[in-house]
Amino acid sequence: MTAPWLSLACLLPLAGLGIAAGGQPEPGNAPIPGFTAAASARERGLEKRLAALLDPASTARHFRVLTEEPHPSGSERNRELAEVVRARFVEYGLEQVAIHRYDVLLPLPRKVAVSMVEPEVRVFALQEDADPEGKGSDAADMGPTYLGMSASGDVTADVVYAHSGNPEDYDWLEAQGIDPRGKIAIVRYSEPYSYRGFKAWEAERRGVAALIIYSDPMDDGYRRGDVYPRGPWGPESHIQRGAISYDFIVPGDPLTPGWPSVEGAKRIAESEARSVPRIPAVPMSWRDAQPILERLGGPVAPPAWHGALPITYHVGPGPAKLHVEIDMDGGTRPIWVVEGRIRGSVAPDEMVILGNHRDAWVYGAVDPSSGTASLLEAARVLGQLARTGDRPRRTLVFASWDAEEWHLTGSTEWGEQFAGELGTGAVAYLNVDSSTSGPDFEVSAVASLNPTILEVAGDVMDPGSGRSILEAWRQRAASSAGEGGAAGSLIENDLGSGSDYTVFLNFLGVPVADLNFDGPYGVYHSRYDNLYWMEHFGDPGYRYMTAMVEVWGRLALRLANADVLAYDLREYATTASRFLDDLGEVPHAAQELDLAVARAAVAAWQGEADRLHRGIDRALASREDLPASALTELNAALLRIERELLVVEGIPGRPWFKHSLYAPRFTYAALSLPGVREAAESGNWAEARRQLEVLTERLRAATEATRRAASLVPGT
Amino acid sequence: MTAPWLSLACLLPLAGLGIAAGGQPEPGNAPIPGFTAAASARERGLEKRLAALLDPASTARHFRVLTEEPHPSGSERNRELAEVVRARFVEYGLEQVAIHRYDVLLPLPRKVAVSMVEPEVRVFALQEDADPEGKGSDAADMGPTYLGMSASGDVTADVVYAHSGNPEDYDWLEAQGIDPRGKIAIVRYSEPYSYRGFKAWEAERRGVAALIIYSDPMDDGYRRGDVYPRGPWGPESHIQRGAISYDFIVPGDPLTPGWPSVEGAKRIAESEARSVPRIPAVPMSWRDAQPILERLGGPVAPPAWHGALPITYHVGPGPAKLHVEIDMDGGTRPIWVVEGRIRGSVAPDEMVILGNHRDAWVYGAVDPSSGTASLLEAARVLGQLARTGDRPRRTLVFASWDAEEWHLTGSTEWGEQFAGELGTGAVAYLNVDSSTSGPDFEVSAVASLNPTILEVAGDVMDPGSGRSILEAWRQRAASSAGEGGAAGSLIENDLGSGSDYTVFLNFLGVPVADLNFDGPYGVYHSRYDNLYWMEHFGDPGYRYMTAMVEVWGRLALRLANADVLAYDLREYATTASRFLDDLGEVPHAAQELDLAVARAAVAAWQGEADRLHRGIDRALASREDLPASALTELNAALLRIERELLVVEGIPGRPWFKHSLYAPRFTYAALSLPGVREAAESGNWAEARRQLEVLTERLRAATEATRRAASLVPGT
Repeated sequence: MTAPWLSLACLLPLAGLGIAAGGQPEPGNAPIPGFTAAASARERGLEKRLAALLDPASTARHFRVLTEEPHPSGSERNRELAEVVRARFVEYGLEQVAIHRYDVLLPLPRKVAVSMVEPEVRVFALQEDADPEGKGSDAADMGPTYLGMSASGDVTADVVYAHSGNPEDYDWLEAQGIDPRGKIAIVRYSEPYSYRGFKAWEAERRGVAALIIYSDPMDDGYRRGDVYPRGPWGPESHIQRGAISYDFIVPGDPLTPGWPSVEGAKRIAESEARSVPRIPAVPMSWRDAQPILERLGGPVAPPAWHGALPITYHVGPGPAKLHVEIDMDGGTRPIWVVEGRIRGSVAPDEMVILGNHRDAWVYGAVDPSSGTASLLEAARVLGQLARTGDRPRRTLVFASWDAEEWHLTGSTEWGEQFAGELGTGAVAYLNVDSSTSGPDFEVSAVASLNPTILEVAGDVMDPGSGRSILEAWRQRAASSAGEGGAAGSLIENDLGSGSDYTVFLNFLGVPVADLNFDGPYGVYHSRYDNLYWMEHFGDPGYRYMTAMVEVWGRLALRLANADVLAYDLREYATTASRFLDDLGEVPHAAQELDLAVARAAVAAWQGEADRLHRGIDRALASREDLPASALTELNAALLRIERELLVVEGIPGRPWFKHSLYAPRFTYAALSLPGVREAAESGNWAEARRQLEVLTERLRAATEATRRAASLVPGT
Repeated sequence: MTAPWLSLACLLPLAGLGIAAGGQPEPGNAPIPGFTAAASARERGLEKRLAALLDPASTARHFRVLTEEPHPSGSERNRELAEVVRARFVEYGLEQVAIHRYDVLLPLPRKVAVSMVEPEVRVFALQEDADPEGKGSDAADMGPTYLGMSASGDVTADVVYAHSGNPEDYDWLEAQGIDPRGKIAIVRYSEPYSYRGFKAWEAERRGVAALIIYSDPMDDGYRRGDVYPRGPWGPESHIQRGAISYDFIVPGDPLTPGWPSVEGAKRIAESEARSVPRIPAVPMSWRDAQPILERLGGPVAPPAWHGALPITYHVGPGPAKLHVEIDMDGGTRPIWVVEGRIRGSVAPDEMVILGNHRDAWVYGAVDPSSGTASLLEAARVLGQLARTGDRPRRTLVFASWDAEEWHLTGSTEWGEQFAGELGTGAVAYLNVDSSTSGPDFEVSAVASLNPTILEVAGDVMDPGSGRSILEAWRQRAASSAGEGGAAGSLIENDLGSGSDYTVFLNFLGVPVADLNFDGPYGVYHSRYDNLYWMEHFGDPGYRYMTAMVEVWGRLALRLANADVLAYDLREYATTASRFLDDLGEVPHAAQELDLAVARAAVAAWQGEADRLHRGIDRALASREDLPASALTELNAALLRIERELLVVEGIPGRPWFKHSLYAPRFTYAALSLPGVREAAESGNWAEARRQLEVLTERLRAATEATRRAASLVPGT
C-alpha cells in the first residue's frame, strides 16, 4: 500500500553516509564493503552476469499476467496469482517453495451506499467510470468501492468539512463553535500524505458518526497535471480505496495480535481488537464529493483548506445532510503467502529476504504488480545464476505477501510464525512494494545499510539518463534542494510504516530497506492504476521495473555473499545521535530531559563501531580470502546488534512495536526514539525520563554487542 | 478606476511618520499641526459641527440616484448625472458651479466577437448573466463588453496561455520554444494587481496578434470566497471591463498630450498618439475562457500559472484556434467635468481640491459611485457650514471628473487647462475614487501629509469597531504583519498611478492623498458592482461611505484652515532618503552609482526642514492668533516646495511626468526616483548618473525653497 507521497517527505542529509556528497564510488574498482579484494572481484563478476540476464520483455510478461484482472486480497484471482507465483518460483529453480495459508479477519462489503437527503435528494455513484483505455470491464464488475475495515453503520446526519481530518482541523472547527460529534465528516486525502486510518482514528476520537474521505484534485488530480488517460493524474471519478485499520497500534490480523493466524491459533474477540475501527467510513471521488461540499453553509473554510474544486469551500454543518449505510460481512478469509528460497552454500541459516505484496485494490499496476513483476524477474535471474553454479553464501528468501493492503497482514503473520529462525538468521529484509511509478529512485533504510545501498546505486545505470542511478538521484536531490528542499539528501533513514518491512524492523529487529522508483502518480488504489497507465506514464518499456531487479538483486547478493556482514554501525550510531538531537524539536524537552547519559551511550557506541570497522577493514585487507569458519561467529555477533535495540515489552501502549529507535506515528510518519518522544510530545516528562533510561539501556546493549563483534574479528 | 488590489501592496513602516507606532494622538486635545492653540480649538469645534451634520440616509439617497442606471463616460446617463451633480452643488450653496466640456478620443465598439474555429466551432457570449438580485435590465441592454482603447482588428490564430502577460511570462514561453508572435494570447487579470494596459503593452511588444484578458476565479472569484449574490466575489459570468490606454506614458486625451482638449485645441493624429494601443484586446469571464484553456495542448503550465479552474492549465499553442473581431468607431465625444467652490475667506487663491470621478463601467456602485456619494455629501455638509458662517480660510474646490476610466481624462484635461492657477494656488488634491468596498481604511499620500492624515484618522470613529479609524487601521496592520506583512505600516507613501491624482502629483507638483475603505471585492468593473452588492456586502447602512465624508471633510478643512500650511517636510525628506536606499534593490546599483552627493542633498533638506518646523512650532505656540497677513508670504513659500521637485523636461521618454520623486511603472505600481531608477533597471548607467544629477538639483531646489520658507516664519 506504499503511499505515493510519503517517500517525498523529509530526506536525510548526506553528511553521515560515509560517501561525500560530491564523490561517487568508482564502479567496479573499490572493494565492496564486507568483501576481501578477491571476493569483491568475484562478486562484481557475478553481478555482471546477473545484469546480463535481465530482460525487460520478461518483466513485461510477468507484469501483464499480474495486471490482467483485479486481484484484491480474499479474491479468487489473488489465490490464482499465488499459484502463478508458486509455479514461477518452481520453474526458476527456487527451493522449499511453499504457500502459507493464514485465516484472517478480512470483511468484505455487502452494501455501501451514500445519498443526500437534504437540501435535495441525490444518490451517489461511488463508482469509477469505465476505463476509456483499459480493459472493458463494466464498472459493476468492480464491486462496491469501500474502505477496508470500515465499521458497519447506518447514519443520517449533517455534514461538516474537516479539511484533512487532522487534530488541528477539528480544533479549528471547535474554535468556531462547530461540534463534529454525531455529524458526518468529509475530509480530503492529504498532501503531504497522512494515512487514511489516522483520519478514521481521529474522527472516531472526536465522536464523528461517519467519515467520507475524498480525493481533491489539488492533491492528485487536475491541479497536479493531466489526468488519465491524457496523463498520470487521477480523473474525476477515480476513488482511492484502502484500509483504515489502526495497524499503527498493532499490524497483522487484528484477532491474533503478536502471534500467527495459523490453524488452531487463539483468536481474540473482534470487540477486543485494538486495530479495528468503530467508525463507518467510505471513500469518494471528487465528482461525488463536490455536490456535498457545494451544499455546505457555515463559515468559509480557511485558505489552506481550499482544494482545487471550482467552489468556495465552506465547513458546514449542513445544510447538506447525508445518509451513509455500510454493511460489512465481518468475515474471516484465507490469505496466501508464497515463499521460495535459494539455499546458501556456506551459511544457509543466514537469510536475506526479498519481499513484495501481491494483493492489489483493483488491477494494481504500480501497487503492487510493478514490484511483483520485479520480484518474479529477480527470482528468475537469481535462480538461473544459482542453477549455473553461482549459489550465494547465504540463503535468499523470496516472499510474495498477501493482504498487505489490509494491515500488512501476510508479512506480519509470516514474521510472527517464523520469528525464531528470523531472529537468529535474518540478515536483512529488502522490501519492494510498488517498484515503479516513474524514474525517481527512492530508498528508506536502516542507516547501517546506507553505504551498501549507495554503492549499488552507483553501479546500476539509470535507464532515463544513461548515468548511474546514484548520479541521477543526487542531481534530483540537488535540484529539489534548490527549490527549497534539504541539500544533498538521499536515503531516508527515518522509517515509519505503511509497507511489509514493519514486522521485520519493529517486531523482529532486522535491518530493512524499502526501495522504489517514484514519479507523478494520481491513480493510487483506483481502477486506473492499470496496464495502460504503466505502459504510457509509469514505465514505458519496463526499463525501471527491470532496473529495480538489478538494484534489488545486486543488493541481495552483496548482503548474501559478503565475507563480513556489511552493516555500517558508525552510520547507525550517527543516526541515533541525530535522533537524540531531534528531541530538541519537542517544546520544553531541553529543560525537561537531561540527555547527557544517553549521549554518552551513543558516543560509546560510536567508539566501539569505529574500533569494529577498523578491525574488519584490516582483516579484509590482510589476505586474499577469509575462511568461512573464522567468520561464522563474527557474523552471528554482527546479526545480534540490531536485535539488541528491541525492547521486550515494546513501546508504551503499543507492545508489538519493540524497536527502541523506530516506530510509526499514527499517520505512518516516522517517530524516532518512540518511547521517549511520544511521552515528551504529550508532556508526560516522568514517562519520557523513564523511556530515556530504557533507550539508554538498549544503546548500551547494542554497544556491548558491537564490542563483542569487534573482539571476534579475525586477527584482533 | 482604482484597482481593488493595488492599495494592498507594499505599505510603509511607521518609523518615519512622526507618530510612534504605539501612541495615538489624544483626539481633541493636542494642537492640530499648522494651527495655533486658539485656531486649533476653533477648528475642532467646526469639525464637530461637520460631524453632526452627517447623515447616512442622505449619503444613501445620493448613492441610489447614481447607481440607478449604467453611466459610462460618453453615455447620455453620465451627462444627466453631470447635471444632477451640478444641481446638487448649486442647491448646497457652492459657488462658481460650472460644467467643463472636453471633446476627447472616446471610441465605442461597433462589434466585439470571439469564436472558436478549432478544434470545434463555438461562439462566446461575452455577456454577463442577468443579475438575480439587481435591476431587471436585460443583458443586451448592457451593450457589448469591451476594453476601452482596444484597436480594431480581425484575427484568426492559435491561442497561447501567457499567465499574467508579464515579461517573465513571455520569457518562459519563449524558453520553451513557444513563439507568441501572430498568436492570440489569453492572460489572467493578476493578483497582485497589474494594470491591464500593461498586459496590452507587453503583448503588443511581443508581437501578439490579439489579447484576451480573463478573470480567473483564483484572483477574484470562488477561490477567494462566496460569489455574488451569496458573497462579494465575482460570479462565473462576470467580466472586468476597463481601458488599456498606455496612460503610463501620457494620460488624458491621447490627441492632446500635455494641453487641454478645449474647443479649438490642436489635436495630433491618432497614429502619432503614444498612449493609443495598436492591439485588439477583449475581456472575458472565466466561463467563456475555460473552454479555450481546456483546449490548449503543449506543455503543462508552471505551477504558479495555475488558477482555480477545474482543469490542468496548458500553454498551447493550439489546438484551440479563435477568431477575434473588434470594430471600434474611433469616435471623439464630449465629456463633462463638474466643478463647484466654497470660496476662501482669507486666501481665496489657495485651493484644497476634493475630487472624484463620476463615470462608471456599468452601475459602478463601488467604482466610483461610493466616492461620488461621499463627494455630494461632503459638498452638502461643507456647503451648509459655509452658509452658516463657517467659511474656510482657503477655497475648497469640488470636482466631479469624467472619463477617468479611460485615461484619467477629465482630471487631466482640467489640470492642464488650469495649470496656471493650480501651480500657484493648489494646496493639496484629495482624491476619493471608490470610497467604500469594505471597512479597511487605506491611504496613499505624499509623505508631507502623513501627520495630518493620521491625526484625522485618530479623530474619526470606525463604524464597525467603535474605536477610531486609526486604531482599527493599526490593529489590521499589526495582524497582517503577523501573517507575514511588514510590521506597523499604515500610509502608502510610494505613489504610482491609476486614479485622478496623477495630473496633480506628476504634472503639477501638488501634494496629493488618495483615500478609500477597502474590503473583499470581486465584481470590479462588472455589472454586479451594483446597489445590491453595496447594500449587502460593501457597506450595509452606508456607514463607511459616510465615515469617508467625515475623514475627507476634516482633512480638507484642516488644510484649508491651517494658519501655516501643515506640510511635514521632515517626513518628506525622510521618504526621499528611503527612496535613495531603495535604489540598492537594483542589481549593481551599489557599484555603479555614487549616491554620496544625493545623500548629502537629502541630509541638507532634512536639516532645513528641521529648522523650518522648529520655527513654525515656536511661532504657532508664541501667541493666540497669527495675523493672516504675516502668513501669506510664508504659505506661498511653503506651496512652492513641492513644485520645486518637478523637472521641466519630465522623466526620460515620458515628458508629461515631471515629478523627480514619483512616477508610475507601466503596471501603475510606484516607481520612486523614476529617472534614476528606470535607467538603472535597464542597466543604462550613464543615463542613471545623469538623472541622479537632475534629481540632486531638484532636491537642492526643494531645500532652498524650504530655507526660504524658514526665513519667512514670523519671529525668525
